[in-house]
Amino acid sequence: MAATLARRFDKARCLVVNIMSSPGAGKTTLLEQTSRRLSRRMRMAAIEGDLATDRDARRIRRAGIPCRQINTGGGCHLNARQVAEAVKAFDLASLDVLFIENVGNLVCPAAFDLGEHRRVVVSSTPEGDDKPVKYPVAFRHADCVVLNKIDLVGVTDFSLRAYRRFVRGIRPGVPILELSCRTGEGIDAWLDWLCAQREAVAAGAARSRR
Amino acid sequence: MAATLARRFDKARCLVVNIMSSPGAGKTTLLEQTSRRLSRRMRMAAIEGDLATDRDARRIRRAGIPCRQINTGGGCHLNARQVAEAVKAFDLASLDVLFIENVGNLVCPAAFDLGEHRRVVVSSTPEGDDKPVKYPVAFRHADCVVLNKIDLVGVTDFSLRAYRRFVRGIRPGVPILELSCRTGEGIDAWLDWLCAQREAVAAGAARSRR
Repeated sequence: MAATLARRFDKARCLVVNIMSSPGAGKTTLLEQTSRRLSRRMRMAAIEGDLATDRDARRIRRAGIPCRQINTGGGCHLNARQVAEAVKAFDLASLDVLFIENVGNLVCPAAFDLGEHRRVVVSSTPEGDDKPVKYPVAFRHADCVVLNKIDLVGVTDFSLRAYRRFVRGIRPGVPILELSCRTGEGIDAWLDWLCAQREAVAAGAARSRR
Repeated sequence: MAATLARRFDKARCLVVNIMSSPGAGKTTLLEQTSRRLSRRMRMAAIEGDLATDRDARRIRRAGIPCRQINTGGGCHLNARQVAEAVKAFDLASLDVLFIENVGNLVCPAAFDLGEHRRVVVSSTPEGDDKPVKYPVAFRHADCVVLNKIDLVGVTDFSLRAYRRFVRGIRPGVPILELSCRTGEGIDAWLDWLCAQREAVAAGAARSRR
């Protein structure tokens, strides 16, 4: 099912980004910020995975991104079957980027291929700098690591240096984008990364291997 | 297996507390603080569940609590079989409290009975005030909700009022203990709650029903 999805995404030349994190690290806020800054340049859509409620989907729609909600009813991750069903709501060929916001869980989602081109792991500073070594599975297959809430570094015990070292140890060479969705600091590097991936996929570039 | 464990815990009159949260909400720090303040009055031990590393177990031991590490190797929760194996390291009858620090995951651990007397869910303010409604399963069976990192309320968009309303909607009547493991604010109410549970179990009180 994931392989079928991957072929569809390739054919449509629509960049598909699977976003994973702990609960509350800032996935939805990152998409809100992305929409506000890129919606004139890119056609975006999103699939929102949650155990319950459509709170995030409503936030994303308010920010201007068409959105399809998947409620897993207790399920701890999204699977390819759910994504295949949700994706019917969109005309993929008319989109530049489709975001899949996974269930907030730093463990299980990493084990499930959704046919995506890129995997993004979002960390946040209040979670602590040791999360990459304690939850290595998610980081091992990340194409990009976003470190959110850097505006809170001064009021927590978070060490940027330790965090970078932990990430590099698990996934050498992965981009680490340090930003704050609240203050806007560092967001431009994220937008640049996203646009570069979009261009690569539009040009028919191969997907990264996992 | 969980029922067998429950009988053993009852027989030993040792309070067993299963602690769940998102990654980085502060489970380990809460146990460190608990040890520092209660170790003269209570005999404590801990079982630490993690995907990888023994970082938390080392922290707990440094704080003075004998500790057994379970590495799940990618597994997203602890199960009763793992706990039964780990518990062999302790003489239960000589303990007042055994803490089981579950894998950092607000979804899967809630589905697994470990024979515990009490379930504690730890939230933290930077995760956002809507986590109870977005991850209802964990909160639905909580005997106590700890809201950690209240020292960060002023620098986040967290609403204490909204959070309390969300928790009450899912688990009416559950104690909500607002505290900061970093500053020590509110810790006394947690220690009081813990001592009361300990007394109830030592007196042979029935466990709460789920």
